[in-house]
Amino acid sequence: MRPNTLRRLKAEGKPIVNAWLSIGAPYAAEAIAHQGFDAATIDCQHGMIGFDTAIAMLQAVSSTPAIPMVRPSGLAPAEIMRFLDAGSYGVICPMISTADDAARLVAACRYPPKGVRSFGPARGMLYGGADYLDHANDEILVLAMIETREGLDNLDTILDVEGLDGIYVGPNDLGLALGHRPLNEPEDGPVAEAIEHVRAATNVRGLISGIFCSNGTAAAMRVAQGFDLVTPGNDAALLRATMADAVKATRR
Amino acid sequence: MRPNTLRRLKAEGKPIVNAWLSIGAPYAAEAIAHQGFDAATIDCQHGMIGFDTAIAMLQAVSSTPAIPMVRPSGLAPAEIMRFLDAGSYGVICPMISTADDAARLVAACRYPPKGVRSFGPARGMLYGGADYLDHANDEILVLAMIETREGLDNLDTILDVEGLDGIYVGPNDLGLALGHRPLNEPEDGPVAEAIEHVRAATNVRGLISGIFCSNGTAAAMRVAQGFDLVTPGNDAALLRATMADAVKATRR
Amino acid sequence: MRPNTLRRLKAEGKPIVNAWLSIGAPYAAEAIAHQGFDAATIDCQHGMIGFDTAIAMLQAVSSTPAIPMVRPSGLAPAEIMRFLDAGSYGVICPMISTADDAARLVAACRYPPKGVRSFGPARGMLYGGADYLDHANDEILVLAMIETREGLDNLDTILDVEGLDGIYVGPNDLGLALGHRPLNEPEDGPVAEAIEHVRAATNVRGLISGIFCSNGTAAAMRVAQGFDLVTPGNDAALLRATMADAVKATRR
Amino acid sequence: MRPNTLRRLKAEGKPIVNAWLSIGAPYAAEAIAHQGFDAATIDCQHGMIGFDTAIAMLQAVSSTPAIPMVRPSGLAPAEIMRFLDAGSYGVICPMISTADDAARLVAACRYPPKGVRSFGPARGMLYGGADYLDHANDEILVLAMIETREGLDNLDTILDVEGLDGIYVGPNDLGLALGHRPLNEPEDGPVAEAIEHVRAATNVRGLISGIFCSNGTAAAMRVAQGFDLVTPGNDAALLRATMADAVKATRR
Amino acid sequence: MRPNTLRRLKAEGKPIVNAWLSIGAPYAAEAIAHQGFDAATIDCQHGMIGFDTAIAMLQAVSSTPAIPMVRPSGLAPAEIMRFLDAGSYGVICPMISTADDAARLVAACRYPPKGVRSFGPARGMLYGGADYLDHANDEILVLAMIETREGLDNLDTILDVEGLDGIYVGPNDLGLALGHRPLNEPEDGPVAEAIEHVRAATNVRGLISGIFCSNGTAAAMRVAQGFDLVTPGNDAALLRATMADAVKATRR
Amino acid sequence: MRPNTLRRLKAEGKPIVNAWLSIGAPYAAEAIAHQGFDAATIDCQHGMIGFDTAIAMLQAVSSTPAIPMVRPSGLAPAEIMRFLDAGSYGVICPMISTADDAARLVAACRYPPKGVRSFGPARGMLYGGADYLDHANDEILVLAMIETREGLDNLDTILDVEGLDGIYVGPNDLGLALGHRPLNEPEDGPVAEAIEHVRAATNVRGLISGIFCSNGTAAAMRVAQGFDLVTPGNDAALLRATMADAVKATRR
Ligand SMILES: [Mg+2]
Ligand SMILES: [Mg+2]
Ligand SMILES: [Mg+2]
Ligand SMILES: [Mg+2]
Ligand SMILES: [Mg+2]
Ligand SMILES: [Mg+2]
Repeated sequence: MRPNTLRRLKAEGKPIVNAWLSIGAPYAAEAIAHQGFDAATIDCQHGMIGFDTAIAMLQAVSSTPAIPMVRPSGLAPAEIMRFLDAGSYGVICPMISTADDAARLVAACRYPPKGVRSFGPARGMLYGGADYLDHANDEILVLAMIETREGLDNLDTILDVEGLDGIYVGPNDLGLALGHRPLNEPEDGPVAEAIEHVRAATNVRGLISGIFCSNGTAAAMRVAQGFDLVTPGNDAALLRATMADAVKATRR
Repeated sequence: MRPNTLRRLKAEGKPIVNAWLSIGAPYAAEAIAHQGFDAATIDCQHGMIGFDTAIAMLQAVSSTPAIPMVRPSGLAPAEIMRFLDAGSYGVICPMISTADDAARLVAACRYPPKGVRSFGPARGMLYGGADYLDHANDEILVLAMIETREGLDNLDTILDVEGLDGIYVGPNDLGLALGHRPLNEPEDGPVAEAIEHVRAATNVRGLISGIFCSNGTAAAMRVAQGFDLVTPGNDAALLRATMADAVKATRR
Repeated sequence: MRPNTLRRLKAEGKPIVNAWLSIGAPYAAEAIAHQGFDAATIDCQHGMIGFDTAIAMLQAVSSTPAIPMVRPSGLAPAEIMRFLDAGSYGVICPMISTADDAARLVAACRYPPKGVRSFGPARGMLYGGADYLDHANDEILVLAMIETREGLDNLDTILDVEGLDGIYVGPNDLGLALGHRPLNEPEDGPVAEAIEHVRAATNVRGLISGIFCSNGTAAAMRVAQGFDLVTPGNDAALLRATMADAVKATRR
Repeated sequence: MRPNTLRRLKAEGKPIVNAWLSIGAPYAAEAIAHQGFDAATIDCQHGMIGFDTAIAMLQAVSSTPAIPMVRPSGLAPAEIMRFLDAGSYGVICPMISTADDAARLVAACRYPPKGVRSFGPARGMLYGGADYLDHANDEILVLAMIETREGLDNLDTILDVEGLDGIYVGPNDLGLALGHRPLNEPEDGPVAEAIEHVRAATNVRGLISGIFCSNGTAAAMRVAQGFDLVTPGNDAALLRATMADAVKATRR
Repeated sequence: MRPNTLRRLKAEGKPIVNAWLSIGAPYAAEAIAHQGFDAATIDCQHGMIGFDTAIAMLQAVSSTPAIPMVRPSGLAPAEIMRFLDAGSYGVICPMISTADDAARLVAACRYPPKGVRSFGPARGMLYGGADYLDHANDEILVLAMIETREGLDNLDTILDVEGLDGIYVGPNDLGLALGHRPLNEPEDGPVAEAIEHVRAATNVRGLISGIFCSNGTAAAMRVAQGFDLVTPGNDAALLRATMADAVKATRR
Repeated sequence: MRPNTLRRLKAEGKPIVNAWLSIGAPYAAEAIAHQGFDAATIDCQHGMIGFDTAIAMLQAVSSTPAIPMVRPSGLAPAEIMRFLDAGSYGVICPMISTADDAARLVAACRYPPKGVRSFGPARGMLYGGADYLDHANDEILVLAMIETREGLDNLDTILDVEGLDGIYVGPNDLGLALGHRPLNEPEDGPVAEAIEHVRAATNVRGLISGIFCSNGTAAAMRVAQGFDLVTPGNDAALLRATMADAVKATRR
C-alpha cells in the first residue's frame, strides 16, 4: 500500500503543511496541491462540495504529491467510510466532544477487529494499491477536531482513545464555544490558552497536533509553538484576498 | 433591459477592471466577482470550463455587481450565440485576424438586420429583462482579440468594422506570433510597441481598448498607459501564487 | 447583512408567497424565482436534488429578488448547517414531532450561545455580507414542519421552543398520519381541523404559519384563512400539468 | 432496430406532438416526455444544456414513450454525429439556408454510402438495438429549419435534397429575417404567408412539415393548417407562465 | 403501478440476476442493465456515486428491462426515502444487526400506517405510475444485509420483522466480522456455514435470499445452493479484470 | 516537462498499448488506466463524454502511469487546443482526408512558429510542468486517423506533413468508406490490404502506426503485423461483453 507520508513527517519531526480545499473544483484542488503542500484536505463540512465533486477532487489531488484527506460534515460513520473508500488517506472530523465520539470516529475508520469499517474500498485500492486491506488500518490518519467546550473538558479521555492519531483545533468554533468572537489566532486569553493546552496534551502523548491558521505567517507561528500539522488559510479566503488586492492595486 | 454598466464606465473615462475566470467553479466565480470588479469574464478558451459549468458560472456572477462576459473557444458563431443566450453581456473573441473575422464576430452578436444572431435568449432574458430583444444589440459588448501578426497587420480594417466595440490584446499570443517568448508585460521592443500601437489606434476611434495583465500592479500601469479595460491576472495563476506563498511563509 | 425580507413581510402582515423547487436545475430555479415570489425553497427531501446541484440553485436564486430557503432531507444538523453555509436564508425542516426535535432544529441554525451551529459560512457571507456572523442568528428563518400525529399532539411545546420562527404544514403527510389519503386541501374533517388548529396556535403566538398548497387558488384560500406563508404548488407538478394541457389543447 | 414511430404517424396522417426541452434537467425532461408527447426535442441551440446534460436528458426521455430528438447548435456535422451516437432519433437543424447546407446536414446523419456519418453509435445501439447500423439511415429523422430569407428563397432546392425528411419552421427567426418582430403566430402578412408557403411546398412533396408554436391552442391551429409536426410551446416559457399565474392567483 | 417483476420471479422460483453498479456513470449503468439482468442495484455505500449521479443512473436503468434498486450508505431513513422517491424499486440496506434495525428499515420504506415513509414520490411516480401511492407498500422490495456477527446472532428476530422481504448476504464483511479475510466464496468453514445458515433460515420463511458473488460461475453455484437473488460480480471489478486481460493478451 | 513515454516506447520498438475510454466516468477511466496500459485515450467523438467530464477524466488518468490522450470530435482546432490545455499529451484526430487536413491538425497542436496553437496551457502545466511551453511542441503526440477513401488516396502527402507523428487506423469507418460492413479485423480483401498499406507506408517513414482492435487477441495480431500502437477494445464494449458473460454463466 502506498505509504501515508504524513506519518513519516511526524516521525521525523517535520511540520506537515496542509492545504484547505473549500472550493468545489477539481482543477483548483489540483493546482493548489501542486504548490508544495504535504497534504490537502477537502472540506465537506463548510466547503461548497457535494459527494460527486469530492470524488473528483480526490482524484485530482491523487495526481499530485499531496496526501488527500477529507473533513466530513460531522461524525457520520457511513459518510466517513464513503470518503475513505473514495481514496481519502485521512479524516479530520469536526466537533468531537467526548471519548465516545472519538471511539466511534476511530471505529468508522478501521476494519474489524479494530473497528467497524465496512469493506469495499473502491477508489481507495486504486490510490492505495492492491494490498489496501492489509495496511489501511495502519495508514489512514484519524484526527478529531477539538472545538467545543465539552471537547476541551474531555480532552484527556479523548486523547486516550486507542487508534486516534491526533487532534485538529478549530480555533473559530472553539472561540465561539468559549464565548468569544471567532478568531484563528486569538491574542492572550482563555482561547489562546485552551489552544496551547490542547497542543501540549496531544504532543506529550506523541500524537499529531493540528490546527487551522489564517495564513502562512500564522502557520509558521503555530509550527514554532509546536504544532505538527498546520493549515495556512483556506482556498476561498486566500483567493478572495488576492483578488481584492489585485483590484485595489489596479485602482490605486 | 439591465444596462451594461461597462459602456457607462467607458463613457465616463473610468477604467474597467475585469476578473478572469478559468477555474470551472461557480463558487469561485461568485467569490471573485464580489471583490470589486466591474466585469468578470469566463474563459472558455483556455479555462477548464465546459458549457454546463459556464452556465452555472454566469448565474453565479449574475448575483454580484460584476457584468458577466465570456471568452469563447474561438470565432465560432453558434457557440458565441449560446453564451449570449446564457446571459453573457459581452464577448472577448480570440484570434481575430481580419476584418472579415471581425465582421463575422459582430454579426454573431447582433440580431437582424445588424447581424445574424438567432433569437431565443433564454437566460439572457432573466438577467437582462423582458425587453432584452429591444436593446441587446446596443448593450452587448463585442471585443476582438488582437494577438496574431495578421491581426496586427489588419488592425485598421478590423477597427473599422461597424458594430465592433473594441479590442482586447492577448500579449502572450501576440508575443509568440511576433517570435518572442510569451510575456504579459514585455519590456521595450517590438511587442511592447505593437501593444501600444493597438491601444492608440483603438482609443483614437473612441473604441474600448482592453488587455490582459499579470496582476494589479501591471494593470495599473496599463490604465496609466491609456487602456480602458484591464484584467489584473487570472484566477488560477493568482490562486497558485498565493498558495505557494502560504507554503513558503509556513516553512520559512 | 442583507436583511431577510420575509421577516418584514410577516411584520407588515403581508402574505409570503413561496416557490417550491424540486427540479434539480439552476436555470429552472432562476426562471421561477423571477416570477414574483417572495421566497423560493429548494426541496432536498422530496426533490430530485443533490448537494452539488442545491448549491448551484442557491446561487441561481440569489440573482433574483426571492429569498432562498431549503428543505433538508430531515432533522439532520450537519446537513442543515451545510445548507445555511451555502447561503440558505431559511430552513423548512420535515417531520418535527417533539419539542426536543424543534430545539435541535433551532440549535442547528444558531451560532453559540443560542445554538451549536459551526462557524464557516462560506457562500453565506457572499450572499449575506461580511457581517454575516453578527446577524445570522436574527435573520435566518427556522420553520418546523408539522406533519405527524406526534407533532400535532406536541404542537404547543414545539411552538414554545425559543428561537423557532414558525411552522409549515405538510398536508399530505399529515393526512396520511391521521389515516386519510394525502390531500393538500382536505374538505371538512379531522385533517382540515388539524390544519386550522396548527395555524391558529401558531399565529396566536405571533409566529409564522406556512403551508404547502396545490396551486394559486388554494394558496389564496389559505391566505384568507390566515396563513402567513403559502406555497402555490410545486414546480414539477405545475410543469407536468401545463405540459399535459398543451398536449390536450393540441390534440383537442 | 426500435422503429421511429414518428414516421408511422406521418404515414398515418396523424399529427406529431413534440415537446421542447430547454431546461437542462433530466428530471424535467422525463416528467414532460411522459405527458402524452410523441417526441421530445432537446434544444442545444437556445436551451441551457451542455453535452453532458444532453446525454442524461436523452437517457431520461428514453424511459418514456416519446421519441428523443435534438436541435444542435448549428450545422455542425461533428456535433450532430455526437447527438446521434448518444441516441437521438432525429435532428432539427437550425439555419439551413441553401441546398448545400441541407446536403451537408443529411450527409452528417447518414452512414456511407448515403452520407459521411462516422460509425460508433454507442448509446444509440442501446436505445435502438444491436442492428442499429442496418436501419439507422432509414429511421433517423432529418429536419431542416427554414428561418432565414435565404432559406426561404432556396426552399425548393432545399426540399429536393435527397434524404431530407422535412422541414421545421422557426417563426421567430424567420420574422426577424424578414424585418418583423419575432412572433410565433404572426397575423396575416408576409411572414404568415411565408410560413404557409413553406408548409405547402413541403407537404406537396410528402415531406414532414414542422413548426414551433406558442402553446397548445396555437399548435392545434397549425395542425388544422396542415402542419405534420407541432411543438406547443417551450418548457421554460410554459413553466414561467404557470408560475407567474400561480403567484397572481395567490395574490389576487 | 408498474409491477415489481422481482416478486414474480421469486414466486415462480426463478433466480433473480442482479447487476451491481459502483461506477458513477449513467451510460455504464444503462449499458450493463441491457445485458439480461433482472435487476440493477446502484451501490451508494461503496460505489463512487453521489445523489445527483444516482438519480441519473436510476433514469438510465429505467430505460432498460432491469428493475432499479439502490444500496444506501447505511440505515439512514431520510436517505432511503430519497432513493425511493427517485424511483428505486428496492433497497438493499447494509449492516442490519438487530430486529430494531430491520424494523426501522421497513418503516422507512412503507407509507403509514405500515411505516413512516414521507409522501412525495417525485420520479417514483414517473417510473411507477400515477397510482404509485396505492401500491408502493406492496411493490417496493426491502432487503436487509446480514454481514455482522450481531446480525447473524439476531437472524431469526430480524427475519420475523413484518414487512421485510428478505436478506442479502455481504460475504466480505461477514467474513471480516467473523475474524477471517474477506472472501465472496469462502471454502468450508464457519463463514460458509454462516452463509448457508442465513440462506436456509430465510428461504424456509418464504423470504428472498440474496447474496453478492464474485462472478457468474460463483453466482450459478449460489443459485444451485438455493439463493433467490444473486449478483455476479461488481461492475468496476469486472471492468478492471477484462481490461487487465486485454492488456495481457496484447502483450502476451 | 514530464516526458511523453510513448515516444520512448516507439524509439525502443516496444508496442504501445492504449486504452479506449468512451464511458463518461473519471472513476472508470482511473480504474482502467491502472491496468497496465501505456496510454489511455478519452474518446470525445463517439464516447459519451462532454468537456467537463473529459477534464475530470484527464485528471483521473493523470494519477496513473498511462499517458492521457484525447480523440476530439473532429478536425476542430479550437476544441483540440482545449484538450491540450487540459493536459492531453496526444491527439488522435478523426477523418483526416488530405494533406491540408493534416497540416491544420499539426498546426493546432504546435505553438508558433511551428503552428498556431494559442498559449494558455492551464492544466497542461500542472501535468507537464512549469517548462511546458519549452517542450510541448516536442512532446505532444499528433496522430491522424485514416478512415476515409480520400484519406487512403492521399496517404503519402498526409504522411509527408511536417510534424505529424503518425496515423491511427479506424477500421470500421474505413471499411464503410470502402463499401463494406464495419469490421475491426476484416479478413483478406481490400480493407485488410488497405490497412496493411497504411501501416507499411507509415512505418517506413519511421512514424507511429496505430489502430483500433476488437480485443487483446486482435491487438497482439496487429502488433505482430507491425503496428506500433494498438487499442485492445473499447471500455463500453468490453464491459457489456463481460457483463453479458456474467449473466450467461449465472443462468447457464
Ligand atoms: Mg469548526
Ligand atoms: Mg490568446
Ligand atoms: Mg411531508
Ligand atoms: Mg431559430
Ligand atoms: Mg458489506
Ligand atoms: Mg472512425
